[in-house]
This record gives sequence, structure tokens and C-alpha cells, in this order.
Amino acid sequence: MTPEKPPTHSPAHRLAREQRSISIAEFFEKNRHLLGFDSPTRSIITTIKEAVDNALDACEEVEILPDIFISIHKLPDGLYRIIVEDNGPGILASHIPFVFGKILYGSRFHQIRQSRGQQGIGISAAVLYAQLTSGQPTRIISRCSYHEPAHEFMLGIHTETNEPDIVSHTEREWDRAHGTRIEITLKATFSARKRLIEYLAYSSVVNPHTRITLDLDGEYIVYERTSNEPIKKPESIKPHPHGTELGRLQRMAAQKSLPKQMSVHAFLIDQFSKIGTKTADEICIHAGIDKDQDVTSLDLSALTSLHAALQAIKIPPPNAQTCLSPITEEQIRQGILKEFNPDFAVAKTRTAIVYAGHPVVVEAALGYGGSLETEGQAKLLRFANRVPLMYQQGACIITGVINAINWRNYGLSQQGLPLGPLLLLVHIASTNVPFTSESKDAVAAVPEIEREITLIVQELGRELKQFLNRRDKMRQSEERAQAICSLIPDIAEKVAETLERPVPDTSPIEGRIMKRLIAKAQMRDGRVHLSVYNYTSTALDVSVYCFSSDDLSQSSKKPTYCDESGGEYTAVWNLHLESGEGWNAEYPGTGGTIDIRGVLDEQKVVIHS
Amino acid sequence: MTPEKPPTHSPAHRLAREQRSISIAEFFEKNRHLLGFDSPTRSIITTIKEAVDNALDACEEVEILPDIFISIHKLPDGLYRIIVEDNGPGILASHIPFVFGKILYGSRFHQIRQSRGQQGIGISAAVLYAQLTSGQPTRIISRCSYHEPAHEFMLGIHTETNEPDIVSHTEREWDRAHGTRIEITLKATFSARKRLIEYLAYSSVVNPHTRITLDLDGEYIVYERTSNEPIKKPESIKPHPHGTELGRLQRMAAQKSLPKQMSVHAFLIDQFSKIGTKTADEICIHAGIDKDQDVTSLDLSALTSLHAALQAIKIPPPNAQTCLSPITEEQIRQGILKEFNPDFAVAKTRTAIVYAGHPVVVEAALGYGGSLETEGQAKLLRFANRVPLMYQQGACIITGVINAINWRNYGLSQQGLPLGPLLLLVHIASTNVPFTSESKDAVAAVPEIEREITLIVQELGRELKQFLNRRDKMRQSEERAQAICSLIPDIAEKVAETLERPVPDTSPIEGRIMKRLIAKAQMRDGRVHLSVYNYTSTALDVSVYCFSSDDLSQSSKKPTYCDESGGEYTAVWNLHLESGEGWNAEYPGTGGTIDIRGVLDEQKVVIHS
Repeated sequence: MTPEKPPTHSPAHRLAREQRSISIAEFFEKNRHLLGFDSPTRSIITTIKEAVDNALDACEEVEILPDIFISIHKLPDGLYRIIVEDNGPGILASHIPFVFGKILYGSRFHQIRQSRGQQGIGISAAVLYAQLTSGQPTRIISRCSYHEPAHEFMLGIHTETNEPDIVSHTEREWDRAHGTRIEITLKATFSARKRLIEYLAYSSVVNPHTRITLDLDGEYIVYERTSNEPIKKPESIKPHPHGTELGRLQRMAAQKSLPKQMSVHAFLIDQFSKIGTKTADEICIHAGIDKDQDVTSLDLSALTSLHAALQAIKIPPPNAQTCLSPITEEQIRQGILKEFNPDFAVAKTRTAIVYAGHPVVVEAALGYGGSLETEGQAKLLRFANRVPLMYQQGACIITGVINAINWRNYGLSQQGLPLGPLLLLVHIASTNVPFTSESKDAVAAVPEIEREITLIVQELGRELKQFLNRRDKMRQSEERAQAICSLIPDIAEKVAETLERPVPDTSPIEGRIMKRLIAKAQMRDGRVHLSVYNYTSTALDVSVYCFSSDDLSQSSKKPTYCDESGGEYTAVWNLHLESGEGWNAEYPGTGGTIDIRGVLDEQKVVIHS
Repeated sequence: MTPEKPPTHSPAHRLAREQRSISIAEFFEKNRHLLGFDSPTRSIITTIKEAVDNALDACEEVEILPDIFISIHKLPDGLYRIIVEDNGPGILASHIPFVFGKILYGSRFHQIRQSRGQQGIGISAAVLYAQLTSGQPTRIISRCSYHEPAHEFMLGIHTETNEPDIVSHTEREWDRAHGTRIEITLKATFSARKRLIEYLAYSSVVNPHTRITLDLDGEYIVYERTSNEPIKKPESIKPHPHGTELGRLQRMAAQKSLPKQMSVHAFLIDQFSKIGTKTADEICIHAGIDKDQDVTSLDLSALTSLHAALQAIKIPPPNAQTCLSPITEEQIRQGILKEFNPDFAVAKTRTAIVYAGHPVVVEAALGYGGSLETEGQAKLLRFANRVPLMYQQGACIITGVINAINWRNYGLSQQGLPLGPLLLLVHIASTNVPFTSESKDAVAAVPEIEREITLIVQELGRELKQFLNRRDKMRQSEERAQAICSLIPDIAEKVAETLERPVPDTSPIEGRIMKRLIAKAQMRDGRVHLSVYNYTSTALDVSVYCFSSDDLSQSSKKPTYCDESGGEYTAVWNLHLESGEGWNAEYPGTGGTIDIRGVLDEQKVVIHS
């Protein structure tokens, strides 16, 4: 008998023929919805968002005030050309093909600090999507300084290998001294105009140092910067011991770049955040490891002890101040006042916490009343690392937390989100924001972050409740005061009659009772007399607006601002009035109306006579 | 003057030093929550799920009945060892390192057919997570046939390069003829026992051909197969023209593997699903392209026309029958009856539709009453390609659709999900299920799929409403009948007294009025007389159970089944009774109780006398 011959074609052999490596470009081409390219409508916004993120990050790297130009131009056959141009530091010609033509390539993935881009995926995904839907390569122009020429590339991606496909590369003239321009042609539907406008408006709220110009086929919209301070570039930090997994520690100890015969003690101090000589000593003792031992000689068991010691020993949290760049309470508050003009606005910034070794700062703001929509649910603005999150609100932990809070405690009814003229803004700044997908639309439910959002929103809720209580009290006392005040003129008239004296001006008395700012415009002897008295209990900064066909520039008090248009004058006086202080002015003429800005409607009484 | 020397260190030069390529393993190590490794609790379930998916897919490839062994074993230091072993076709030794030690490697990504795995990420992500948290490599044993030795590998992943790290490789003995075993050691918390049990139970509902044995540190739970039919392996199809983007068409036309000088006409027929000679003619005419032209000579403009023609010409949908493997209405219904024992169960399978060129079949089932929880929201079971989806219910379009339906129309109140003893099961089968992230927990909101889910759930809702109406009517008529029946014995007694005759048996009359099945066990003359009458308006298939210490095997009618244990007899007669038909039997003895199974409690009356 001959020995049985093994079959060379077991089922596994057949199956093996179908096994192959999948390039990340193929993967994301097929699963492009993971990157925010799930519909022709969304693809325009995603493309712009990725390009703007890169532009802002690049300017921040060199602390330049960003000046960004965006254009959307309709082409035949359902195609659109998107242009995004910045005044950033530019990209070296040798790197351009990789930055735009290779998925998973970038400078920020390996650094521990806050940045908008953190994956090296976004903009090359846009190039991939453009190539897939329009068949056309993307044009990149970039220049690094006045002394160097600009470079122009036409680029695609070899999908099967995830390597750049350089269609052409030329040096050229460019009128910018430095910056980068991307021109991308894709199949799309531009039906999300409102969302784009919102995205840019919100971006400018959290990036007040940025000017954005949008060109919609010839219609220009400019988002002017409101701050001339460039954002300070967040600095990279070393990994924090508390977030370092055993496998990572293993790799760090085996790095080829370590100095020869580095001791465990030196390794700890050199490679981690927040470990000094004393802490390193403690860690080695806790782990039962000789601190002078060569770190490369540690076996798995020794590394396991070292890892346990790194988690057990108390180590201060990482320096959030240097590696994060929160927007700050004041800038957020100014931003929402400017954008939404609410009656009440308050912003908070929490102190930094740490999750899995990553520092996180949560900021939030609340606005109420004013121009905010009275009907329906609160407006929720979500941000991560200074980028507005425009999609998947329902999947985001920010929404989850706000829905879970009982808003009746703070005087509002709710259906999921609270109801009424309410704006909520939450910003999460971290060296590693845990998004639920590569499209970075929603933040995952990390317990530490969830707790921070809960605490800060509750803080804002308490302030809202105080405001609403104050407002309600004010309304009550106003009603009472009005009842009294309605009697005063009658009493004054009777008393005057009895005493045979002229009827006195009772309005200051009314003002005092009602604790209001009283503003009057009175015509007398061919002149108009303006007067403002602050009968409230606090100092006020107010603006007196006067509109008249009389020449207001001849006023006895020089206006802060005066303008004439078609025979109609507008004058503005900016005043600081202490409690009890008054102000007056007059001008020749017979007419005019006044208005006071800077105080709540409930706080002022305006009288024309 | 010498010319100004260009600076070699513009900011861009400094930034360029930080640019680098990111390996997909590094990316997913940092963003492991995208893969379902977001917490120590979840990582055990994700690991088992990925291994079981692979085992089932492998068995399906060769149409074997799967036999899967899973073990979870607690080790010191917060570590767990997970073992998953299958009887599949095995993996060639030369491929093992890549299948388990390289992310994005697999056989199913490039094929267009239904499978559980579609990415080539899952199991290597588990190896990566194990290495990161325990520092330990993973053991793989695999054998392809009785004629070949088994191979054992200890494997990790070189994170920086995403290449396999082969710690050891040996040939060895193994008692299995073919199959694969993975032993993976990771840091974890095993607090999700209930969810694991649910995951396995639900897996076995949608994979009735599978036996799963779970060993929890010595405690064994077996999920026995309920079908001995292996699942027919879905066949790969070619891409469908309607889902093919321009960029993809460009690549297909430029493939090196095409025959030399292939005509456009031949290319269309050879490369696409559902294009025959006639359709290919039409497409060429619509595109204005000579059908005999060499396909590689088409420029972007010609390809754009061809692409437009491919979308414009009517082409039949892809063959869902061959490439998909729906569970079928009957198997789903049996599955939920077995698992949840509801009073009412109905299942539906929709006919296939196409989104972006991918065929999709949606199946759903509804169960009501019985053992289902009366309080709270409906139980929702979501499945995709025969895999239970255990996380992120809120982010899934299935949940979205069910929440959006007005359940009051179907007789239920709702709070998001409908309320009451309700079970809803939805299964989405597709060649490309659009998940919201790599962890494959939730299905994205694709409009075509959303519509299919809405339609099928509404169909089920209508059936539920009919059932609830029937039940309500039945209850009403029962109440009426009971009122009448309570008088009949009194009348019979009075009449018998008057006529001086014995009191007749009135129960058949009651049965007729109440439209019930009447079952009686009566002792007479040392024998027990069993009788069953079907007074309902339909034919019934019922089982008569009789329990007695008398010898039931001596019954006048031979039982379908008869058993004795400790002197107690159980006999079962399976009967088919037309409306109005009766059945009887007798046995020597003096005792026994009967029960009827196969009809609702409301439909039967059981009398012992």
C-alpha cells in the first residue's frame, strides 16, 4: 500500500486564494460614510470643514492670524468646485503629495496636544471622494515663504495602495507670500446652505482671531475677526503614566532611540510627563525594581510590576495649561452675545481633568431670551477642539447629558432638550477627543467627560434659575410700583391745586419708586431737552440713541457717534451713570425720539413729551 | 549687493519634520473605542463576537454545521483568557499571521456577498487590544484537514508597521480534524455576563444550525442547534452598474487583468451584474460610444458619458437570492417562539431592494404577550447579516424608525419605543451593511433601508392590531357567554326536577355557546373517561396531556407518547379535531388530571369530575 497522499486542495487552500490585504484607501472608499461623505449634500460641508480645520491648525502652528478664503462654484454635470485658501505657513513640496494623497499621514497624530485634526485622514479622504465621484484630481498650490517659489500639484490617490498619484507638479508664481490653496472638484448637491452658514458662523464664534470670506458663485459673505490676538500654540507634552497601557510601556522601553544602557530611573523621568526624581524613586521601590537596572533588560513580569506601580503611585495630572487651548469664559460669552443677542448670557470653564491619561477641559455657556426663538427646543451648539460639530447630535454625549438633566429644577420645561428661548453651548478641549467615528461628529460616552459636562451644565442651570427668579421678582415689584405710580400724578395735581402751585414733574419720584432708568425727550422753547437719570441701585453703562430730522451734531454734548443719511440724523452718546446719577443735553429743533440700549427693557422708562 | 539667501528654515521646514505616516494599527490602538474596545467590560464581548463571527463565516464557506466552543477563564492581575474554537475549514499556516496579526486583511472585503465579517479588522483588533493591555501574544492553533498537521502560532502585531509579529510557530498534534482555536489574554472586567448570555442566545436564534458551548470557568451552558441544515453559502456577484461611481468605473476600465483590446461592449457584459448583449448595446448608444472601441482608450469625458448611461438605462436589480442569506420568516418565528414563548408571533421577509448598488433584504418579527415583560418598553432585537447588534441601540436607524412610528395606531402606547409585553426583531441582510462605525453596533440612516424597515414594522403593527382586536372581541363574547352559561345548570336542574328525570350533562351546551374546546376527565365504574369536544368554529391541532398514577399505557386509545417515572404516568395524544368533532378514550383506574396544549387559555375549558 502506498501512503495516502495529502490533498493539496483542502477547502482552506481554496479560501486562502481569496485572502488579501485591504488598503486603508479602499476601506474608506467603501465605508466613506464613516468619514462624513455619506451623501452628496453633506460632502461639500465635510470637504470645507476638513480644509478649514487644516488651515486653522496650520496658522496656529506659527501663531498667524488666519485669513481664509472659501469658494463654492457650480460646474456642469452636477459637479461643484470647492476652493479653500489660507495664509498659513505652507507645506514643503516634498510633503504635499502625502498630506493630500495618502490617508493616515500627518503631523498631529503622534503629538499630545490639542489640535483640530488629529487623525491624518480628513483632507485626503476629500481628495479620495472627489476622485471617486468626479474622476478628477485635486489641485494644490502651496508656498512656504517669499523667498521660495509656489508649487502646484494635480493629485489623486492610488486606491489599491493608498499612495499618492501625482498627475503633475510645477513651480509657479503666486501672489501670496505663504499659504496653501486646495481646489477640489466633486459630485455634490448644495442644499445645505443654511448649515454651511451656521458652521462658519459658529467657527468664527470659537475662533475669534479668524477672518473667513465665503464666495458663493459671486455672493460674498465675510466673517470678520473680533480678536487680533493669535491663539497661543498648544505645546506637546509627554505621555502621562496614568494613561499608559502595559503594551505601550513595553514598546517605550524597547525603543531604538533610547540612549544605550538607560536606567529605569532615567527612563521614567525622560519619557513621561510629571515624573521627577522623587516620584521615579517611589515607582521603582513600589515595583520592586532596581532603579539603576538597564530598562531594556526588563522582562514582561518586571514591566507588569512597573506598570502597576505607575498606576498606583500618586502622580500630578498633566499640564493642561500648556497643551490645551480653551476658548475662555469671556470670549465664549462675547461670542454668543454677538451672534445671538440674548437677554442673559453666562459662560464657565471647568478646571482640567484627566481621562485615560488625556487632559480635558470642558467649557459651556448659556444664553436666554432676547433674539432667541421662544418656541420649541433649546438651541444646542456642540464644539470639540474649537470645531463646531454639525451632525449626529443625537449620538453625542453632550446631547445625552443635557437630555438627562431635569430642567424643571431650573425653571424650564423639557422634551428631551429643555424648551424655550435657550441657547446651550458646550466645548470639549482635549489632547484626544474621543469621537464616535472618524467623521468627528459626536463625542463618545466617556464617564469622566460625561461627569464634567453634567457639572458645568448644572452650574449654568443654577445661574439661569437665579436670573429667571430675579426677572420674576422684578416683574412683580414693577406691577406693584406701577399701581402706586399711577396715583402719584393725581396726588401731585390735587396737592398743587390745594397749594395753588404749578404741577411738579413727578417722573423722578416715579423713577425712584420703580427703580428704573428714566430717559426723557422734552420739547421746550424751540429746543429739545434730553435727560437720563439712573434710579436703579447699580452703576450702568448705557448708550443713548437719538433719531431726528434736526441737526444732532449741534447738540450741547458732543455725541460719541453722529451720522446723517437722507436728512435723518442718528446720534449716540455712550454714558456711564452711577446709581443716582443723571445726564442731560439739548439741541435746537422740535422733534426726535430716543432709545436706550445696554439695559434690559424692564429696567428702563422712556418718555417723550 | 549679493542676492538675498533663501532661508532653509521657514516655519514649513520645521513643521515638515513632524509629518509622518500613521499605521492603521497605531490609529486603531489610539481610537480603539471605534472598534468596540472602549471599556474593560465590553472588550470581552467584542473579542468573543469577532471570533464567533469568523468561525460562523468560515463554516458557512464550506457549508459545515458549526460547532463552537467558547471559554472565559479568570487569571491573576485582572487578566482573562478567552478561548474560541471552531470546526471550520482551518486557515493555511502561511496566512495565519496575516489574518490575526495585520489589521485590514481578509477574504471578504473584496467580495460582493453577505457575510458577517466584511472589513478584515475585527479579530486582529482583538489581538492588538490583548497585546496592549496584557503585553501577551495570542495563541492560534489551526488545522486544515486530517492529512495535514496542526500549526500553532504565538502572534502579536508590530504596531508601527501593522505587520504580524510572529513570536513562535510550531507544527503540533491536535485532536480536531480541521478547525481553528484562538487563545487571547487581555485585561478586562467580566461584569457583562447577562449581555454575553443574551448575545449567544440571540446568535443561536438567527443561526439555528449552530451549536455553541460556553464554559465559564467550569460552568457549562450549551446552545443546541435547532436545524440540521447548514446555511447555503451566499455567492459573490459582480458589481451592479447603479452603484458604480465614476472613479470606480475609471479604475475598472484601466485594470491590468482585462484581456488585451477588450471592446466596451465586452467589458460591460464581463465586468458587471445584469448586463447582457442587448443592455450593453443600449448603454453604448446612450453614451454615444462605439461599442467596439477598446475600453482602455476611453478618456475621462467618454467615461463620464458611459457612467451617465449606466445610471440612465433601466437595468434589473442584482440577484439578491444568490448573494444574500436571509433567515426566512419561518425560522425567525420559530426562534422567537422558542426563546420568548409569546402568545402571538408573526414574522415577515421583504423582497430585496437596492441602495447604491447593494442588495438589501429586511426581515422582522413581532411577538406579544406570553412570557414577555408586561412593564416598560418593548424588547428590541437588532441583527445585521445574522449577527446580533448589542450596543448603541440609540444610534441605530432600526431604533429611529420604531421610535418614529405612531404605535397608538396599533393599539399600544409608547415612550420612544412602544410599551407593553412586546418583542420586535429586525434583521438587515446586505452585501454591504452601512454601519455607523467599525465596531458594527448600529446601522446608519440610509433612506432606502429606513423605508424598508418602516414598511415591514408597519405590516407587523397591523397584524398585532388584528390580534389585539380579536382578543378583545373574544374577551367580550366570553363575558357574555359566561353570563348565559351560569344560568344553564340551574335551568337544567329545574327542568329535570319538573320532568322527574336525571339532571343532564349541560357542558356540551355551554361549550357550544361559549365556542370553546371542552375537555373532561370523568370517573365512572372504575374507569376514567376522557373526552374532548371542539366547539370552536375552526379546526384545531391539540395535544391532550394526562397525568395519573394509573397505568395510562392501557388506555383504549394508544397515546402518541407514554412515559412512567416513579409510579407516575404521563401520556400525550396528538389530535386533529375539525370544528364540531369530538374524541374520547378510557383507562382502568380512578384518578388523573388532564391538560390541553396547543390552544390559547381563553379557548378551552377543562373539567374534572
